[in-house]
Amino acid sequence: MVRNSSVSTKSTRRELLKESILEVASTLFIQLGFQGTSMGDIAKAMGVTRTAIYYYFRNKDDILRELTSEITGMAGRIASDTLEQTPEPIEALEGLVRKHARLVLSLPLQFRVVERNEELLAPILRKKSRDSRRLVLDRFVTVIEAGIAAGQFRDSEPKVTAFALLGMCNWCAWWFNPKGKIPLEQVVDSIADLALNAVVREENRRLHTGSIDETMRQLREDINLLEMRLQKK
Amino acid sequence: MVRNSSVSTKSTRRELLKESILEVASTLFIQLGFQGTSMGDIAKAMGVTRTAIYYYFRNKDDILRELTSEITGMAGRIASDTLEQTPEPIEALEGLVRKHARLVLSLPLQFRVVERNEELLAPILRKKSRDSRRLVLDRFVTVIEAGIAAGQFRDSEPKVTAFALLGMCNWCAWWFNPKGKIPLEQVVDSIADLALNAVVREENRRLHTGSIDETMRQLREDINLLEMRLQKK
Repeated sequence: MVRNSSVSTKSTRRELLKESILEVASTLFIQLGFQGTSMGDIAKAMGVTRTAIYYYFRNKDDILRELTSEITGMAGRIASDTLEQTPEPIEALEGLVRKHARLVLSLPLQFRVVERNEELLAPILRKKSRDSRRLVLDRFVTVIEAGIAAGQFRDSEPKVTAFALLGMCNWCAWWFNPKGKIPLEQVVDSIADLALNAVVREENRRLHTGSIDETMRQLREDINLLEMRLQKK
Repeated sequence: MVRNSSVSTKSTRRELLKESILEVASTLFIQLGFQGTSMGDIAKAMGVTRTAIYYYFRNKDDILRELTSEITGMAGRIASDTLEQTPEPIEALEGLVRKHARLVLSLPLQFRVVERNEELLAPILRKKSRDSRRLVLDRFVTVIEAGIAAGQFRDSEPKVTAFALLGMCNWCAWWFNPKGKIPLEQVVDSIADLALNAVVREENRRLHTGSIDETMRQLREDINLLEMRLQKK
């Protein structure tokens, strides 16, 4: 028992150190660029010897591979799954935005490393990253086209709208602070809300969310509005 | 006259070559990183000798300075001017989004170079770049807070909403193709439309844009909606 527990403590400590190396490396790759960062820089930033770093990673490429392999491909898979599970456009769009935003917000550093260093990835990873990006865009465009065709979404150029919503989500990697005041899930809620309001026609939004009271309120507002316009004439 | 014209042709040719160097350099800085790009790479990509490049720029830092000095600071100035000229929240937000999106779409490569290499800029330029970014964010937040206070915008966390709208605009630098099918001004229109729909309350949107016919249409829709809800009960 004692021996087992000691082994598991050791392997946990090892995992933690490996995680720290990845975190420090990703920060440096973002600050100094992949090519501007040396194994020595990573060791120095962690206050350990270079040998300690080489114990976990053969070289810098090895670190980049480990950093990017987790997030690469993931976004595409998530987007595809969401669309298969939810055929209805409004719900599907909400699912796509929520899941993509949550992924970016959960792994902001990795996301930035991939975005910044895609050209430097090994060919296989680079292909995986590009395929994933294309898959995400394709799923957003598909849902937006379906929503427009069903009369639920405002008419727009689907590709521009898709990129605008993706921009809202992706940009989070550049500003969100996981240790800051605003909780991750609150950001997800806000982004989803903004995205749906941006795209879904009012009457569908209201049909989807409103109550009878809300409809009555809306009716009164419409009547007031009509009155104002008639007076202006 | 002949002499003058020859001089101006020469200086035009010089300007064109300088512009080409900047364009090729920005593409390489994005692809390979600033530190991964050499003066030789730039010369090779242009099919000229290194000496030809050194005729225009003393070194790589000189190219980076020239590339970034145009766009750095510009976004902040534009955002500040917009807010001074337009105090009304809906119009101000529309102005901010349109002008910021147009700037990013007009100089996408420069924008990406700054975003990617901010840490590598000379201290003065880096400070200018950060101040400008802060100024833009501040102006967006100010307008969003004013719109919420006036009851014209939906309630939200102003900072998250500001970053979401900035993300829509900034992301354009990563996908927009100036030589592609979609004209720049169409993208500006779409982004502004999405941003306003995302943020402005329906009734204010309608007050701002609608006609009497539109209000009548809305009234009929609200009555239909009310009927449906009452039947469901």
